[in-house]
Amino acid sequence: MTENNLPYVILVEPQLAENVGMAARAMMNCGLYHMRLVNPREDHLSAKAVSASSNAEEILYTAEVFADTKAALADLETVMATTARHRDQTKPVYTADKAASLLSEETAAGHKCGILFGPERTGLTNEDICLADAIINVPLNPRHCSLNLSQAVLLTGYEFYKTQIEAPREQFVVNHTRLAEKEKVLGFCDYLEHKLENCGNYKIDAQREKLVINMRNIFTRNRLTEQELNTLYGIVNYLEKPKV
Amino acid sequence: MTENNLPYVILVEPQLAENVGMAARAMMNCGLYHMRLVNPREDHLSAKAVSASSNAEEILYTAEVFADTKAALADLETVMATTARHRDQTKPVYTADKAASLLSEETAAGHKCGILFGPERTGLTNEDICLADAIINVPLNPRHCSLNLSQAVLLTGYEFYKTQIEAPREQFVVNHTRLAEKEKVLGFCDYLEHKLENCGNYKIDAQREKLVINMRNIFTRNRLTEQELNTLYGIVNYLEKPKV
Repeated sequence: MTENNLPYVILVEPQLAENVGMAARAMMNCGLYHMRLVNPREDHLSAKAVSASSNAEEILYTAEVFADTKAALADLETVMATTARHRDQTKPVYTADKAASLLSEETAAGHKCGILFGPERTGLTNEDICLADAIINVPLNPRHCSLNLSQAVLLTGYEFYKTQIEAPREQFVVNHTRLAEKEKVLGFCDYLEHKLENCGNYKIDAQREKLVINMRNIFTRNRLTEQELNTLYGIVNYLEKPKV
Repeated sequence: MTENNLPYVILVEPQLAENVGMAARAMMNCGLYHMRLVNPREDHLSAKAVSASSNAEEILYTAEVFADTKAALADLETVMATTARHRDQTKPVYTADKAASLLSEETAAGHKCGILFGPERTGLTNEDICLADAIINVPLNPRHCSLNLSQAVLLTGYEFYKTQIEAPREQFVVNHTRLAEKEKVLGFCDYLEHKLENCGNYKIDAQREKLVINMRNIFTRNRLTEQELNTLYGIVNYLEKPKV
């Protein structure tokens, strides 16, 4: 991810320094580093704010402060405003993931972008929203969609972060060992089958065919590692040792 | 969304009642209602917890408490464990969105599912993780991926919530009015053009062709509503009124 052209997170009239700090932490979680503050009520460099940022204080120290929203977005080309409530304005409304993919395209094209967040209690005013190109709405339970400021920053930033990485959505982690080849897995099944044949249990004889199928299903479908296969051999050998 | 078969959110040994309350709030945001607590250190029904839940206290009141993790997931069919750090266990690792789509399929198939979250400071132990079918990893900035408990619940829950809704990712909101038909938009352009012709400015004559194209581009590409078109007519008429 290039840090050169990332969206600005613009907090409009945040009330509590602690919330600004927590928003900085959420930004850092999502690889966003540029904060702008419009007329913050408290000092965003106070000990409270720095402590709440939880090691993301570099964002607070480099934050730019503006007297009004218009000034904070004067040099930006694309601005989106986050709102929780339905607004009476004629404007495109995007879900957070759709907005993230649009902002990703915009920043990749070299456009300076910003995301507006309103004050904790009231959210953005209509006067601020009408300055934005579009509205971002995070889809949440309509019975309970109020988020605190840092959570709104986190969800919006998280969607943007996902557009910037190429992480596999699915991995199978194998540490200090490797997946066992099928021959080895089936070799263990044969070994176990042989041990069972010799254990002298007539029930097993009667159900041999079904047991073999089940056993192979059990041990083939869960992608055993070589280490785990050794563990299974150990278990079988331990079980057949005569009790002292 | 049916509330009958939703994943259980299982908080293992949460330390602070306030964090349990905030996790309940995040669950409610995401339409998740079933909380299970494993050996919580503080009372999850304390005033602190209820206050932090911010009107999601019904989740706290219906939460089930268990002595250990095994008991908390005994009746579940699919369990996923959230971790921030890389773990030394052979298990599938899914991003939060991939995990959400799998959990959505599982719950739709009638399987009872659970998502495990560890204690605030330490996260889940390896003993707890090995009880789970898979690991969920929320993709975040590797420089700063620590989340507090409620934020981990929020991001994981948010991804699940998105699988449960069919919201359009993009809307164009038009309130108390409708989009103007092209004929009306172009009619306004003609009107404006006519007005400009009559204003006696020789510069306009010289650049008429370009001006007409620009003007039509400006007014056609932003999807004007009928109300906005009336506003534009009003502006033009106001401008041409002789100054008193």
